[in-house]
Amino acid sequence: MSQTVTPIPTSWVGPLRLSGEVTGEQEVPLATYETPLWPSVGRSARVSRLVDDGIRVTIVDERMTRSSLFVARTAADAVAAGSALTARFDDLAAIVAAQSRFARLIDVHTEVVGNLLFVRFALTTGDASGHNMTTLAAETFIDHVLAWHPELEYGSISGNYCSDKKATAVNGILGRGRSAVAEILIPAAVVADQLRSSAQRIADLNVRKNLVGSTIAGALRSANAHYANMLLAFYLATGQDAANIVEASQGITYAEVRGEGDLYFSCTLPNLIVGTVGNGKDLPFVDEVLTRLGCREERSSGGNARRLAALIAATVLCGELSLLAAQTNHKELMASHLVLERKAGGRR
Amino acid sequence: MSQTVTPIPTSWVGPLRLSGEVTGEQEVPLATYETPLWPSVGRSARVSRLVDDGIRVTIVDERMTRSSLFVARTAADAVAAGSALTARFDDLAAIVAAQSRFARLIDVHTEVVGNLLFVRFALTTGDASGHNMTTLAAETFIDHVLAWHPELEYGSISGNYCSDKKATAVNGILGRGRSAVAEILIPAAVVADQLRSSAQRIADLNVRKNLVGSTIAGALRSANAHYANMLLAFYLATGQDAANIVEASQGITYAEVRGEGDLYFSCTLPNLIVGTVGNGKDLPFVDEVLTRLGCREERSSGGNARRLAALIAATVLCGELSLLAAQTNHKELMASHLVLERKAGGRR
Amino acid sequence: MSQTVTPIPTSWVGPLRLSGEVTGEQEVPLATYETPLWPSVGRSARVSRLVDDGIRVTIVDERMTRSSLFVARTAADAVAAGSALTARFDDLAAIVAAQSRFARLIDVHTEVVGNLLFVRFALTTGDASGHNMTTLAAETFIDHVLAWHPELEYGSISGNYCSDKKATAVNGILGRGRSAVAEILIPAAVVADQLRSSAQRIADLNVRKNLVGSTIAGALRSANAHYANMLLAFYLATGQDAANIVEASQGITYAEVRGEGDLYFSCTLPNLIVGTVGNGKDLPFVDEVLTRLGCREERSSGGNARRLAALIAATVLCGELSLLAAQTNHKELMASHLVLERKAGGRR
Amino acid sequence: MSQTVTPIPTSWVGPLRLSGEVTGEQEVPLATYETPLWPSVGRSARVSRLVDDGIRVTIVDERMTRSSLFVARTAADAVAAGSALTARFDDLAAIVAAQSRFARLIDVHTEVVGNLLFVRFALTTGDASGHNMTTLAAETFIDHVLAWHPELEYGSISGNYCSDKKATAVNGILGRGRSAVAEILIPAAVVADQLRSSAQRIADLNVRKNLVGSTIAGALRSANAHYANMLLAFYLATGQDAANIVEASQGITYAEVRGEGDLYFSCTLPNLIVGTVGNGKDLPFVDEVLTRLGCREERSSGGNARRLAALIAATVLCGELSLLAAQTNHKELMASHLVLERKAGGRR
Repeated sequence: MSQTVTPIPTSWVGPLRLSGEVTGEQEVPLATYETPLWPSVGRSARVSRLVDDGIRVTIVDERMTRSSLFVARTAADAVAAGSALTARFDDLAAIVAAQSRFARLIDVHTEVVGNLLFVRFALTTGDASGHNMTTLAAETFIDHVLAWHPELEYGSISGNYCSDKKATAVNGILGRGRSAVAEILIPAAVVADQLRSSAQRIADLNVRKNLVGSTIAGALRSANAHYANMLLAFYLATGQDAANIVEASQGITYAEVRGEGDLYFSCTLPNLIVGTVGNGKDLPFVDEVLTRLGCREERSSGGNARRLAALIAATVLCGELSLLAAQTNHKELMASHLVLERKAGGRR
Repeated sequence: MSQTVTPIPTSWVGPLRLSGEVTGEQEVPLATYETPLWPSVGRSARVSRLVDDGIRVTIVDERMTRSSLFVARTAADAVAAGSALTARFDDLAAIVAAQSRFARLIDVHTEVVGNLLFVRFALTTGDASGHNMTTLAAETFIDHVLAWHPELEYGSISGNYCSDKKATAVNGILGRGRSAVAEILIPAAVVADQLRSSAQRIADLNVRKNLVGSTIAGALRSANAHYANMLLAFYLATGQDAANIVEASQGITYAEVRGEGDLYFSCTLPNLIVGTVGNGKDLPFVDEVLTRLGCREERSSGGNARRLAALIAATVLCGELSLLAAQTNHKELMASHLVLERKAGGRR
Repeated sequence: MSQTVTPIPTSWVGPLRLSGEVTGEQEVPLATYETPLWPSVGRSARVSRLVDDGIRVTIVDERMTRSSLFVARTAADAVAAGSALTARFDDLAAIVAAQSRFARLIDVHTEVVGNLLFVRFALTTGDASGHNMTTLAAETFIDHVLAWHPELEYGSISGNYCSDKKATAVNGILGRGRSAVAEILIPAAVVADQLRSSAQRIADLNVRKNLVGSTIAGALRSANAHYANMLLAFYLATGQDAANIVEASQGITYAEVRGEGDLYFSCTLPNLIVGTVGNGKDLPFVDEVLTRLGCREERSSGGNARRLAALIAATVLCGELSLLAAQTNHKELMASHLVLERKAGGRR
Repeated sequence: MSQTVTPIPTSWVGPLRLSGEVTGEQEVPLATYETPLWPSVGRSARVSRLVDDGIRVTIVDERMTRSSLFVARTAADAVAAGSALTARFDDLAAIVAAQSRFARLIDVHTEVVGNLLFVRFALTTGDASGHNMTTLAAETFIDHVLAWHPELEYGSISGNYCSDKKATAVNGILGRGRSAVAEILIPAAVVADQLRSSAQRIADLNVRKNLVGSTIAGALRSANAHYANMLLAFYLATGQDAANIVEASQGITYAEVRGEGDLYFSCTLPNLIVGTVGNGKDLPFVDEVLTRLGCREERSSGGNARRLAALIAATVLCGELSLLAAQTNHKELMASHLVLERKAGGRR
């Protein structure tokens, strides 16, 4: 195997003005072949700087999960074993605590299908995204479960009820990753000047496209225009496993007209998989990026990762707002796209 | 905006042995922070070389889509306009043909919700993934539609029924991107020696984890272990817009025991968004990679992109097969993962 | 087996005022244990009579489907056979036409997963809902397909891609049953007087509850409050197979504020499975009900069933509008519910 | 409003042999226009009587839910209020306990989208299905929540995150109704003689049709052939609100070959909405049916409803097994269907 690197075009955009989980102003890095994304995010970053509190981000929850699969002879056995495991929460929590300085068990959720028992473990994992920590814990759990329940057979360390890098409903409902909401209240004049649109038109478009359009497309727990673009670019620039955009991009844009034409605009991201330590995070350029983002500070456990999650959520809001505003105007999207691609490096 | 690059660790893996859309042997490039993916794909590539026809890939369909949104006063008007547009397929096709050397209109699908009319255009786009070509066509369509139907208002160039970079049902059912099936028939002895498992155990695991587990997770038209990982790595290495892994990773793994313990194993990928020309594809290192992959040859229109799609589908199969085989054995996953991460650069 | 009957409480409600597919006024029958549904539908029926055009219904499409499953040795074979079948559309259509006076083949849609070939046949079936007609056609198709393609094996007459009595995405996207949109424009004063609410509050509630709430619930191509209630009651009263409410209840409520507080309100029902002939329709009391509904007239083929579909769609709109209006007011739902249950027969 | 009744053809089928939640033999009532269902369920009932333990049913969980919607000014407020409510679980539980003899609060689950707060309350409700009890509790909760949190406004008593009579993911994952698994182990000879098939063919068909076919259809947390049919018929005959079949029919059939061709066959139904008291249950004929089913006995709270749920789950298994077995044989389905419809009353 010959090793090399693939160099992804990267730019720092902003700064964004922030409040809530993160305060002040912060530039953000976006690594992407789709370079028109840079000025697009930049436009809404400018909007954020025209608003007192900028973009406010609230972190709702954090956890990493792994679901293991056991095979019983009967459903009766599977259900009984599932109940017994849930009742031994403290034993399982002790196992995790003994194994890791950072991981803590916070939930055990079971589901039975016929004779199959799925057990979904949820852990907090400090500043790591926590995939390895949680997989390691699951491996140890399996040892114990098989010892406690000889009537069960090993099925799989992962039973797809986790769910890792798959678009599912379970992650949003039971939680996986950091859950974040980013929101902004934009005065009517700023909407008109900077976004060339109005609160009513953006709110209407959000209902028609993101909510109704996604519904007929058969989307699942998701209603947004393009979270995946911002997530990919931010994930790549910060050493995240970007395959997680599959689940992280499931989120909901919700907007309201407030007062005399002001725009309330929010992006809800229940499944932000992010970490500031762990695999990929000690590559020198990643380390540098995380430092510049203020995610290498001394904080309480998980604090750097929460900061990173907040920055990503705010960046997603910027890209989403710019695109929706552009799509309220016929021909604006393609025109700006072509101009921007040309600007971004004359590559076309 | 200061520009730089994010260097993603990249390795060439294989070669894979191939038949069907692509014949012969071919190494493939994987750009990822998750470097254990390299030996994992490599293991199944070795399996493919132990089988006469290796991995056979069939390309089923190809198209790119964009759905535009129009707003009528009534459903009656929206339905009537939708029918009229469908009936003018030839006019719409002529508009596309006049505008582009490569794009050809192949389908117009309408759906009405209340007074909202969604029109989903499908085009073939040669060797491009076709996002820009299709968006440009949609923009021109909108001009014509608004002229033909003054009772309609512009809603949005994209109504999310496309669906771009979102996990939905419509893409698999109506098509988006290249649709590919990769399959292999592996003798029992090779399954045992190379994959340390058996056909029965892999087939059972596929049913329990990928089909049943994905079902309870609330997955949507998707049943696989980790297509997203291989797609991300291959997309990044070849200049693709990797945000498309959100839709491309919706696919189904299906396995059967054949004869005396041989394994039939297949990966069906209905939404492979790939191109060999267009945005990002003329970056020098991408050009080099595509050349090495044999995707810079003189072929009929779309032929290079189909080759690329086939290589990706085969690579997805390799990664999927290796992971499933590993998960049939308790403790194999984590053990090999840790060994491989250590090997891959001593980064942990 | 001892046979008896289960007597479901039934009431005629309305009349509803109608335009579009059906004109004039018409009472509708609702058979249900949930008798508060009667005055609830009745309230919006009264609203419809206060509006010039009442509820306008547009029928968008009609078809019945069955998907058969064939098993090949390889995906390559399955894809080839699928293409060959699609190309023989005329042969397949001739088979249907020879077998039935009413059935006509209108679509053949194939999908391949690994070595499995799913073929979804769509037929128009006159005034029947068409399950038996379509199953019979599929049975005959299978004979021919197996004769034409000895490389295929019989898999199943139904491969669940139909999809019958299951909530899926395919039915809405490719069509199954009658597709209908019901809509009404209600003056602000009528909204205030009759529905004790306002257009803005109903529109907002629809977005927050039916669109956002359904999204986080993980609904699939569906955004409504309780279509299932009206469908069940109407289906039972008219001899329909009411298990079809599973798919028929997947629909979308969409509302807008128009002018100075007028309410545009619509219900889109893409999968109304209804028939006026066939199984259950010649029971004497069903015959009487269908006659009273004007669905036993001499009309062009399918005309009686379309009339029935339109009446059902309008009834669904009535029940949906009343409930949403009630839910805009704290405590109205339960209060009216309890009063109504008491009124409806003193059964509690 | 003139009241009448709709008489649904009804037959008692069986008896089924049962173990687990219910022991012994029991006939079951099916009210349906689709009378071929009677002998179809009857066939598998006969199978159950040829197996020692018959069909074993395990009840996994029971609860009824209602989600209320509150509107805040900001996500920050909504998240804070949601956390505060969860922390006041004991206060909320006391409110329920004071209001009802039977209802007990067991879970409060919150989810925030932008400034919208959804609160999903779960209660046990004794032998009632519990819709009214839970709605009444939610109404009282809202009073308290609005008093505790003046920063919140009333949104809706139901925010569709309940989810009532809608096919969603949340009900299966967080629970709604009784959750039941029915299973049977059938010797190879019985499969051959009674079902005219083999364990391997039935297990294969289940994977290909119910799992793979449902996946490509875009089904949601559901993989079965026709649960809706049995549920409708049983619900109608026992005074249940049959609109609940929409959610109740989301379930999973899972089968395995055991030993030398024995068939393990299971039906998992996570959302059985059933009650033996409450609306509709004191109609004289319903009372008689419930008595005959043994659901009018003195049992611990919820015991009669659990018995009813178990009988329904076992009946669903019977219908599902018969249909799958029939579909393994080309032409068996239609042939038996036509014969049976003729037998069932000469109506065709």
